[in-house]
Amino acid sequence: MKATTITGARVIDLRFPTSLHHIGSDAVNKDPDYSAAYCILETDGELEGHGLTFTLGRGTELCVAALEYLTKFVVGRTLDSIAKDLNAFYLEVTGDTQFRWLGPEKGVIHLACGALINAVWDLYAKAEDKPVWKLLADMTPEQIVAAVDFRYIADALSPAEALELLRRGKAGQAERLARLESEGYPAYTTSAGWFGFSDEKIRRLCHEGLADGWTKFKLKVGGDAADDLRRGRIVREEIGWKNRMMVDANQRWGVEEAIARTRQLAELQPWWMEEPTSPDDILGHARIRREVRPVRIATGEHCQNAVMFKQLLQAEAIDVCQIDSCRVAGVNENLAILLMAAKFGVPVCPHAGGVGLCEYVQHLSIFDFLGVSCTLEDRVIEYVDHLHEHFRDPVKIRRGHYLVPRMAGYSCEILPESLAEFAYPGGSVWRKMSEEKRLAGVSQ
Amino acid sequence: MKATTITGARVIDLRFPTSLHHIGSDAVNKDPDYSAAYCILETDGELEGHGLTFTLGRGTELCVAALEYLTKFVVGRTLDSIAKDLNAFYLEVTGDTQFRWLGPEKGVIHLACGALINAVWDLYAKAEDKPVWKLLADMTPEQIVAAVDFRYIADALSPAEALELLRRGKAGQAERLARLESEGYPAYTTSAGWFGFSDEKIRRLCHEGLADGWTKFKLKVGGDAADDLRRGRIVREEIGWKNRMMVDANQRWGVEEAIARTRQLAELQPWWMEEPTSPDDILGHARIRREVRPVRIATGEHCQNAVMFKQLLQAEAIDVCQIDSCRVAGVNENLAILLMAAKFGVPVCPHAGGVGLCEYVQHLSIFDFLGVSCTLEDRVIEYVDHLHEHFRDPVKIRRGHYLVPRMAGYSCEILPESLAEFAYPGGSVWRKMSEEKRLAGVSQ
Repeated sequence: MKATTITGARVIDLRFPTSLHHIGSDAVNKDPDYSAAYCILETDGELEGHGLTFTLGRGTELCVAALEYLTKFVVGRTLDSIAKDLNAFYLEVTGDTQFRWLGPEKGVIHLACGALINAVWDLYAKAEDKPVWKLLADMTPEQIVAAVDFRYIADALSPAEALELLRRGKAGQAERLARLESEGYPAYTTSAGWFGFSDEKIRRLCHEGLADGWTKFKLKVGGDAADDLRRGRIVREEIGWKNRMMVDANQRWGVEEAIARTRQLAELQPWWMEEPTSPDDILGHARIRREVRPVRIATGEHCQNAVMFKQLLQAEAIDVCQIDSCRVAGVNENLAILLMAAKFGVPVCPHAGGVGLCEYVQHLSIFDFLGVSCTLEDRVIEYVDHLHEHFRDPVKIRRGHYLVPRMAGYSCEILPESLAEFAYPGGSVWRKMSEEKRLAGVSQ
Repeated sequence: MKATTITGARVIDLRFPTSLHHIGSDAVNKDPDYSAAYCILETDGELEGHGLTFTLGRGTELCVAALEYLTKFVVGRTLDSIAKDLNAFYLEVTGDTQFRWLGPEKGVIHLACGALINAVWDLYAKAEDKPVWKLLADMTPEQIVAAVDFRYIADALSPAEALELLRRGKAGQAERLARLESEGYPAYTTSAGWFGFSDEKIRRLCHEGLADGWTKFKLKVGGDAADDLRRGRIVREEIGWKNRMMVDANQRWGVEEAIARTRQLAELQPWWMEEPTSPDDILGHARIRREVRPVRIATGEHCQNAVMFKQLLQAEAIDVCQIDSCRVAGVNENLAILLMAAKFGVPVCPHAGGVGLCEYVQHLSIFDFLGVSCTLEDRVIEYVDHLHEHFRDPVKIRRGHYLVPRMAGYSCEILPESLAEFAYPGGSVWRKMSEEKRLAGVSQ
């Protein structure tokens, strides 16, 4: 590894005005402006570490402020001093004795930890001249286990069990990688089914998706029951019954309503029902799952940390484990979740979309296949076709599959010109919008 | 009610340098500076609404920034328009479509909601010229139910069940109030057992506590096992076996360690073991509780919202429900929790201490006795004897009991001179410390 010292950090409030086009709209998140608290770790060499946490516009400034504070845990340190004890680093960043009160390990401060820890992994992988998936796949089982915080999860997965899993995962890795390099990692598209889209637009996007080789389509539900069903039938008319369709209620319902509504949607034969209720309701998900069989239950994009994922697995509350790359504290905490999901035999299908999430999660899913679960069965990565043009190493999709990324790092580096354009509120896009509003006499 | 329009809001970052004296230290929170994001709602009349959320120093600025944003939901509104649909107001404040992504309903943004919603209740009670406990006790069951968000809790407690509970709670209210006015509400003290205190200091404080009429003492544990036991035996030597002793591990352990350590401490016959593990681990608490009987399990001060409390009750994970007045979204959400705890027959013993928490929670416990659980059995309010001198209407304690507060409002109004002194970083106390450090050559 190249000797590297982190000499400084820049944090940027980055916002894309996606709400203008109803992109990303669902039953709960009606007007998202895809945004990020973005962090650049500067070093004494040529390398930089980039990391971001995904947000929806207002409130990004809170994650930015938290991230600015947390950079004190990396600035002035050598990369080597962090890499040689990754869990000690994780505990420092997530355990600040005063900040911790605001969580612990949840919400704004944890989102900020996700950006910082991911930036360190980006830098680490660049220093090793590998993509993050390969850095992980090349680490020994002992090194992976040493990056995981077992304090609150050892009752579900002990370090010894994790080691055992990872040792088994070393066998056949070259063959699995060859398969991925030939086929790619399977994906599904959410681009066709946003809440704000007209029936005609859904129909057209399904049609185009099929032509592009997509076989799995997700539809946002949680509106009026008849509307949901009508929109779902449109998707089925377009994609037929051999392709797969998932539905996503984005936490819209209480437990009993979720059961009733999922039963109504069962005629669509959804591959899964996603976020039927509050992301905090482990027992609620478990009950919904029991009562809507055979519809499978998915959640995780709003799951705050590994302790909650542990319980979703222990309670048999989910059929699909939807990790998020930066709501939890980055690669370290996601390693814990991948390992637990493998032990419990639950497929990991990451949440993606937003900004940078597709770029991030491909590394985690590839490592899951190469070294943890070692299977692609029932595994898919979400894909949404927005904002990739801003990345230095954007995801590459071919016929509904992610191609294996080759560039060193975590693929989350945004182009300098995009940072300048979409920085908030000073970037050129926002200054222009502000000027237009001023001219139109709109107060802000 | 006096016609009142909220015309403006001031938000203050308030910090007390308590870490200088090891006050508030425990196994996890080693150096707290008791702090608050503090909010003053200004009106077109003489009244002001005051509310705060409690923090530990660094990071208070995040809650302040969140609170400043959320004041947009009250400024310009009449108090009447809020009071006539308290749940609609709750949903607005907690459901901002972009902010919500940072939670939902947890961490920094939810702490800020707590301060704002409590400030509105303070104003509402002042406009009715009643303390908050009396405002609540005088409301009809229908009015209380209309202030509660049942979306995610109706599977555990329906609005109809809540109404039934509250209707029963109307009988005998005058007699219960007379009892409280004569005896006060029972309390326990945490002031003797902080982590940073020497054995001699613990001994002296127990001795003094007994002389002041205290009969229940809490000790911080979670350090070295032998130390915990030695300190616990000191407390028992001082207070004997007829008085009650509780132990509090402040989340220090994993599930299996918590079971082992609690069994070791069982010889102290603790009345409860508090926060044995992660506050997010509902199933973990349930298992610990099953395996350490007859030691009772308490948690809640870090419980992020009503959905989590619901599950702690459903999973039979707790014997003691420790509500926090401002970690959840203020009075509204605490009404939901009081009602659920009553249905499940679990005593509510609020978390207090910090700054303003004792002042707040007395109102909630008094209402719980007058109108919800209607019993004092196994109920106590935490008491810590710090920082009360800064309040306009500080709690009054007599022989280990809270006396019923008389002043209109929520008792959380801090004196203007204290606001000026402890505002951070510009208040006189902080400027003086900064100047002293500068003279001593300490970098900040």
